[in-house]
Amino acid sequence: MSGGVERYGLFELTVSSRSARPRAWFWQEGDRREITGFIVGPGKAAVRFMPDKEGTWRYTVEADGGEVSGEFQCVPSTGRNHGPVRTSGMHFRYADGTGFIPMGTTCYAWAHQDGRLMEQTLETLRNAPFNKVRMCVFPKSTQFNANDPEHFPFERIGSGGWDVDKPDQAFWSNLESRVAQLGELGIEADLILFHPYDRWGFSSLSREENLSYIDYCVRRLSAYRNVWWSMANEYDLVFTKNLEEWDALGEAVHNGDPYGHLISVHNWLEPYPKRPWLTHVSWQGGDMQTAFKLRTRYGLPVIVDELGYEGDIEFDWGNLSAFEVVDRMWAAAAFGCYSTHGETFYNEDEVLWWSKGGRLYGEAPKRIAFLREFMNSLPGPMEPLCAGVLDDPSSMAANPQHAELVRSIWDSKPQDIRDIFINEFIKPIGVHRDYMLIYLRRHCQSYYWLDLPQEGTYDVELLDVWEMRREKLVENAHSRVRVPLPGKEGVGIYVARKSGKELTAK
Amino acid sequence: MSGGVERYGLFELTVSSRSARPRAWFWQEGDRREITGFIVGPGKAAVRFMPDKEGTWRYTVEADGGEVSGEFQCVPSTGRNHGPVRTSGMHFRYADGTGFIPMGTTCYAWAHQDGRLMEQTLETLRNAPFNKVRMCVFPKSTQFNANDPEHFPFERIGSGGWDVDKPDQAFWSNLESRVAQLGELGIEADLILFHPYDRWGFSSLSREENLSYIDYCVRRLSAYRNVWWSMANEYDLVFTKNLEEWDALGEAVHNGDPYGHLISVHNWLEPYPKRPWLTHVSWQGGDMQTAFKLRTRYGLPVIVDELGYEGDIEFDWGNLSAFEVVDRMWAAAAFGCYSTHGETFYNEDEVLWWSKGGRLYGEAPKRIAFLREFMNSLPGPMEPLCAGVLDDPSSMAANPQHAELVRSIWDSKPQDIRDIFINEFIKPIGVHRDYMLIYLRRHCQSYYWLDLPQEGTYDVELLDVWEMRREKLVENAHSRVRVPLPGKEGVGIYVARKSGKELTAK
Repeated sequence: MSGGVERYGLFELTVSSRSARPRAWFWQEGDRREITGFIVGPGKAAVRFMPDKEGTWRYTVEADGGEVSGEFQCVPSTGRNHGPVRTSGMHFRYADGTGFIPMGTTCYAWAHQDGRLMEQTLETLRNAPFNKVRMCVFPKSTQFNANDPEHFPFERIGSGGWDVDKPDQAFWSNLESRVAQLGELGIEADLILFHPYDRWGFSSLSREENLSYIDYCVRRLSAYRNVWWSMANEYDLVFTKNLEEWDALGEAVHNGDPYGHLISVHNWLEPYPKRPWLTHVSWQGGDMQTAFKLRTRYGLPVIVDELGYEGDIEFDWGNLSAFEVVDRMWAAAAFGCYSTHGETFYNEDEVLWWSKGGRLYGEAPKRIAFLREFMNSLPGPMEPLCAGVLDDPSSMAANPQHAELVRSIWDSKPQDIRDIFINEFIKPIGVHRDYMLIYLRRHCQSYYWLDLPQEGTYDVELLDVWEMRREKLVENAHSRVRVPLPGKEGVGIYVARKSGKELTAK
Repeated sequence: MSGGVERYGLFELTVSSRSARPRAWFWQEGDRREITGFIVGPGKAAVRFMPDKEGTWRYTVEADGGEVSGEFQCVPSTGRNHGPVRTSGMHFRYADGTGFIPMGTTCYAWAHQDGRLMEQTLETLRNAPFNKVRMCVFPKSTQFNANDPEHFPFERIGSGGWDVDKPDQAFWSNLESRVAQLGELGIEADLILFHPYDRWGFSSLSREENLSYIDYCVRRLSAYRNVWWSMANEYDLVFTKNLEEWDALGEAVHNGDPYGHLISVHNWLEPYPKRPWLTHVSWQGGDMQTAFKLRTRYGLPVIVDELGYEGDIEFDWGNLSAFEVVDRMWAAAAFGCYSTHGETFYNEDEVLWWSKGGRLYGEAPKRIAFLREFMNSLPGPMEPLCAGVLDDPSSMAANPQHAELVRSIWDSKPQDIRDIFINEFIKPIGVHRDYMLIYLRRHCQSYYWLDLPQEGTYDVELLDVWEMRREKLVENAHSRVRVPLPGKEGVGIYVARKSGKELTAK
């Protein structure tokens, strides 16, 4: 391997093998990894390995007629290569410690389209603000998704079913090259393993078949650093599987993946229950207050992976205005959550970005770039100011007298009324010791009373999320300050600490 | 009485009386009414009577030294006089049968301001689209409400309290003349009897004092045909009264009012429970789906009397965009509910329309005029298409297969998930046998699949609620029709039956 393999890069070796699952061992000083290979053709298997440590790695791979041994140099990573993404508290980081702020998009079936369209999708992504793509392994069948892919994941059985133990090499080769191309663009591939939108039988394989499929998929793809595992799109619409089977499938991914990639389950109505193998919440819903509640309830990072799409189709999940999408994404951010874009503008050729990729037509992406730029400029991730409200709403009261009133109401009302009441206090305000983001959503107030610490100086800036504009409003503020605002929808207030007391969540 | 008294007009007689509650009897053929008078000054009482039947009414009034008797002619009503408003199923009608479509506004303390400002408020109302005003009997003390009124409802007790048995004549005289002036403009006076925004002690009178106050107020004002009784603004923020006292007060109004004016109770968090004396739901909340649910649960007309105000103040209830207000009002209408406007633009003299009246500055009122014009053009009130969804969500499914799926999900999910699920089906679509209104709210779809009956012809029109524009889209449609739309927020579809099968709710 001339030049060696980058840390978090991909080392690959092909061997002759009659075994479908040849074992391999990689070691360096005290570190030793066992990896299982996968079939790549008749009598041929490959082993892939993502080294996480620089230096000389030695290996031995099982092969027909014995073993193949060797070594390679792992060299420092370069450019966009920061390793796989991990959770870090309620947030994310790359393995090398660099912060990762998920700003995803959705192209479910882009890897099942013709080559020209896939290239166009990649070209669009190259110029778009997104660093994660939600995409399906299995092809998709639903409105605007009538075409068959060129290749299917498995060979067909004569009787019409699928032989999951015979992966179609052309299919997997295409899929992994798409994952790799995303990686080159610095984009995470949030790979959806199951989904209900099916006319070929992939959503109704048996449990054993599902386990075989997962086993192969994980062996083949987990060495790509930018892979995330999404167990499902809308797991609770896949009526052929119950929770017990989902758990078994999730555990199989967790146990099969030597690199500990992120694992989530995307829901339709009901968020997937908390499980040891679940790394974060991948939630569908349009109400960012609920995203905040899930973050608190699960104690895990939340990505609102489906908040509705910018578009104009007949379905309510696909006809949001650009402003509505951008507004939800800013609100998610100020709640200490993350969110994902999608776009569904109707056109006659039925190439809608949300499923097939292609071009983007909307007004949201450039505003998401503004959000991303803002988020990247921050000294660290924010926590929601209202973090304590679910346990004690009086923590959000303006003064002790008000807090007492809040407690008395809270103690005397039924749950549905408590919910209305508590929602009054759940505001998208994010706090970090050095800054605060107050996002006002659609509220058109012409001033805001900011209560800052007595000691210290703080600069106050206006954020106009639609005009993509920042403007200094007050310099060296402290104590109680009346901040003038333009009185329109889509305004944020950014407070930066210059000196004095750190800012804190309640 | 030259010219006589109009039907639903006001007959008034003043007598010498030491009694605070002189009785009077009015009769015409078999009809006989007992009315109780009220003090108007030292040794003087008045009796007021609203006749509901044309012809000669005779009367006898108790007075010092015996009785005063006489008669007057009740003549046909003219102009805007259609009598008091009654409920009619889930809707409203005047007593003479004319339809009444509530389109209210909010000026809580307008009748406690100086004369010049009150005249300006009336002038504004003369040119505004509103036919109901929510207004307080007691003065108001809260943000932007720091001024004392010229008169208070009762005489002061030396020790600092109020003598509720000594009404201040100047106060009541002003109040009733304001009610009468509204009546002349064709505007209902939704009189709020109690509220929590107080610094004078009116919210913490004893139960007996409250009953005395109500007794006087009802005797004095109930003969005005345009009076509605609102027991409270935000009853559940009046911590000095419990539900049992509210019930007693509500019953006292009901029993004391000989004319059966409408009675409601406006809430903060918790809608007031259903009671025999409650004529309709006066609800505070921003979510029109909840308004629909209340309509179904109570089986009473619902007026969303506080959906938030157009404005720019610091409180979230008072900084909605004009579009948001207009959008909520159209949604309420399509749910078969009614709604009320309010406006809170900050200005330095602290005259905000929502409380003190004065001028309107917003962009919503002219769009509310468009809504009112649309509503007035309809052949009758609409019922929500989704009327049956709370009992059986499968009634909203597009086809039998889908209905079965819905039932299975509905039967297997916990309540919070059922709520998310059912909300998917709760759409602001109103149906009348001769028309349908589909209001799309913020959904930007560029087409809509309309399923019309096979037999008949239907005209399809676009409603642009912001541009206040109607445009014919399809003529003589039937069966399944793809309706082209502009793909923007604030669009409604109006379908008018020209021939053939009547339209029905599900």
